[in-house]
Amino acid sequence: MRPVAEHAEAVAALLGPTATETVPLAGALGRILAEDLVSPMALPPFSNSAMDGYAVRSADLADLPAELPVAADIPAGRTDGPALDGGTAHRIMTGAAMPDGADAVVQVEWTDAGTERVRIERAVAAGQNVRVAGEDVTAGQVVLPAGTVLGPAQVGLAAAVGAGSLPVRRRPRVLVLSTGSELVAPGEPLRHGQIHESNGPMLAAAVTDAGAVAELLRFVPDDVEQFLGTLDEALAARADDPVDLVLTSGGVSAGAYEVVKDAFTDRGITFAKVAMQPGMPQGLGHHHGPTGDVAVVTLPGNPVSSLVSFEVFVRPVLRAALGHPQPGRPRVRARLAEPLDSPPGRRQFRRGRLDAVDGTVTAVGAPGSHLLAALARADCLLVVGEETTRVEAGEVVEVWLLDG
Amino acid sequence: MRPVAEHAEAVAALLGPTATETVPLAGALGRILAEDLVSPMALPPFSNSAMDGYAVRSADLADLPAELPVAADIPAGRTDGPALDGGTAHRIMTGAAMPDGADAVVQVEWTDAGTERVRIERAVAAGQNVRVAGEDVTAGQVVLPAGTVLGPAQVGLAAAVGAGSLPVRRRPRVLVLSTGSELVAPGEPLRHGQIHESNGPMLAAAVTDAGAVAELLRFVPDDVEQFLGTLDEALAARADDPVDLVLTSGGVSAGAYEVVKDAFTDRGITFAKVAMQPGMPQGLGHHHGPTGDVAVVTLPGNPVSSLVSFEVFVRPVLRAALGHPQPGRPRVRARLAEPLDSPPGRRQFRRGRLDAVDGTVTAVGAPGSHLLAALARADCLLVVGEETTRVEAGEVVEVWLLDG
Repeated sequence: MRPVAEHAEAVAALLGPTATETVPLAGALGRILAEDLVSPMALPPFSNSAMDGYAVRSADLADLPAELPVAADIPAGRTDGPALDGGTAHRIMTGAAMPDGADAVVQVEWTDAGTERVRIERAVAAGQNVRVAGEDVTAGQVVLPAGTVLGPAQVGLAAAVGAGSLPVRRRPRVLVLSTGSELVAPGEPLRHGQIHESNGPMLAAAVTDAGAVAELLRFVPDDVEQFLGTLDEALAARADDPVDLVLTSGGVSAGAYEVVKDAFTDRGITFAKVAMQPGMPQGLGHHHGPTGDVAVVTLPGNPVSSLVSFEVFVRPVLRAALGHPQPGRPRVRARLAEPLDSPPGRRQFRRGRLDAVDGTVTAVGAPGSHLLAALARADCLLVVGEETTRVEAGEVVEVWLLDG
Repeated sequence: MRPVAEHAEAVAALLGPTATETVPLAGALGRILAEDLVSPMALPPFSNSAMDGYAVRSADLADLPAELPVAADIPAGRTDGPALDGGTAHRIMTGAAMPDGADAVVQVEWTDAGTERVRIERAVAAGQNVRVAGEDVTAGQVVLPAGTVLGPAQVGLAAAVGAGSLPVRRRPRVLVLSTGSELVAPGEPLRHGQIHESNGPMLAAAVTDAGAVAELLRFVPDDVEQFLGTLDEALAARADDPVDLVLTSGGVSAGAYEVVKDAFTDRGITFAKVAMQPGMPQGLGHHHGPTGDVAVVTLPGNPVSSLVSFEVFVRPVLRAALGHPQPGRPRVRARLAEPLDSPPGRRQFRRGRLDAVDGTVTAVGAPGSHLLAALARADCLLVVGEETTRVEAGEVVEVWLLDG
């Protein structure tokens, strides 16, 4: 069987970093900066008052109380910048530019708040209540390095240095297509032997959650012509805005009706048994579609196998394509609350719940790859190595945090 | 001064839980389930094969190798469910319904894979390779409780139990409006005394990140008529789809030109000094707008004060309105890497970086509420209580994780 790491590398080789595109600040949240953001300006751009009060020469306050004529009024946003003459004060508001000649601000609470003349009760040191130009950012400084995930504070900083838009990596575009003659759309009634299609909505949500753009195609039965027809029609319709990755689920196992395998074998996709549980049957390669080659990853059809395979192989690759600084899930180590068996020669990914306070992790549900309710209760994957067939309670295992 | 907790309670009282709306599965990612999801069906809905192979009566495999006629072929999705007669086998695929009369499945790898007759090399126990109806979910079971944050696995489970759409809390609609005569849009040139408007894009991103819908209005100068005119025009334009909250920034301090304070004082909004740093000047209440009363929170104008106030007062309330199970940021305790001073009588929120491996936290940048670059480097807030004026290195402080 193919080692997990080898298959992961092969999937990673399918998808390079996406191109850079420019988005307005209003659409930048959650995107990843593609280039260093260099500030063209200092922050603050000019020295300004940290208080509402009076700009003064601190030396003029040697004798207290001092009374000074108020020579100008400087609200925030005043752009003509009148200079301060010695022996006078300017009334000044928070954020307003410090006048030339002033070296400190007396906060209004220490004065009589006069508008013609002001009586000042307490002295200030030179520099007091002044925000100095450039003390936050200097012109030419890299304020946000490439690879920064843009949150509210980063958006605010970009705006402050004047960036109305930002270069970010284009979101990879992913087509999701489930296969299976047993599938019926959620909301429609089932006959005996049928189940609702759940992999498509689940994988589309996982693609979106990874930061990519998901397009969910209508699932197809186990019919090679319908499968290839649906796929090629969808690719042709997107010729102007090409698809980066096709993600199929189902039809890759050892049965008699394996539509994905039947359609793709000897046509650019290789199938392999990967040494893991769940998720053994995997495939990848390039499909020669109507608009050229497109990368394909074929996931197994059992829902748990499908999502676990996505976590192990696809999510980190999508995030790496986006330039994410941490493409993988956060990993911690935790003690197992209850013993666990694991098949020899396969890396087992069990669904778990982590008790971060205790530092313990418990498997949720049995290993069966059809147990979707247990998957939905899990907040982590619990990883047992290929060589291990039994982990006792209290032993330490690797844990992947699914909400990180 | 008003205690932080008292102001937080007052803000919380402004916004109740939003109404329930129904969204299709494709739009459910990240939303919060408003009602328990009860499964109308069992999962699996019928007992089915866990393997590609042959459905048999295990008792027929007493003598090995056994050879049985293959009486039927059951691919996944076959709906007519032919029963199995003793002494025969049905070829069956993974996920296909078990025939009545069969009690186990022999995987194809243990057979000669025959289609007319099959030679079976190994015995199976009753129940082997069978997924029993209802072993994942029983009909009537609550599969996702109200308050569940819908991730990929939860979307998949909802689809599996047949839910084509889900009831979720409506996203609160928040108008964001910055004030200040010094403001210029990012991308436009500055004159001396002017700065780029950064609070609006930053707060809109923070609102979106909290799960609400942000609408950023064009900022206004320190002019009461323009401020109220802009606000009321925006509210009137949204009469059919009302706004849940107005969030202003700036104009609430002690200066001579405090547009938000001037516009709102004695008009339904109360202003208070809250015992915190940054973020002392705060206001809240209801504005009597053209379409009725609307909740208002007025944040201070310094960018760091504005975002910290949002974190402390607004984000948890928006998430509570959405029914989020954990409205607040995750809180941990960590040892301070370097000593820290804090003003008496005020709860200080410093920007920090957490070293989770070491369990230490370091303040990023000085306390100044204009230091946006330091805020953008922070991954946590570090909280120092009102009674504390000095924390030594190695002492433990409360930390709010900003990426949690």
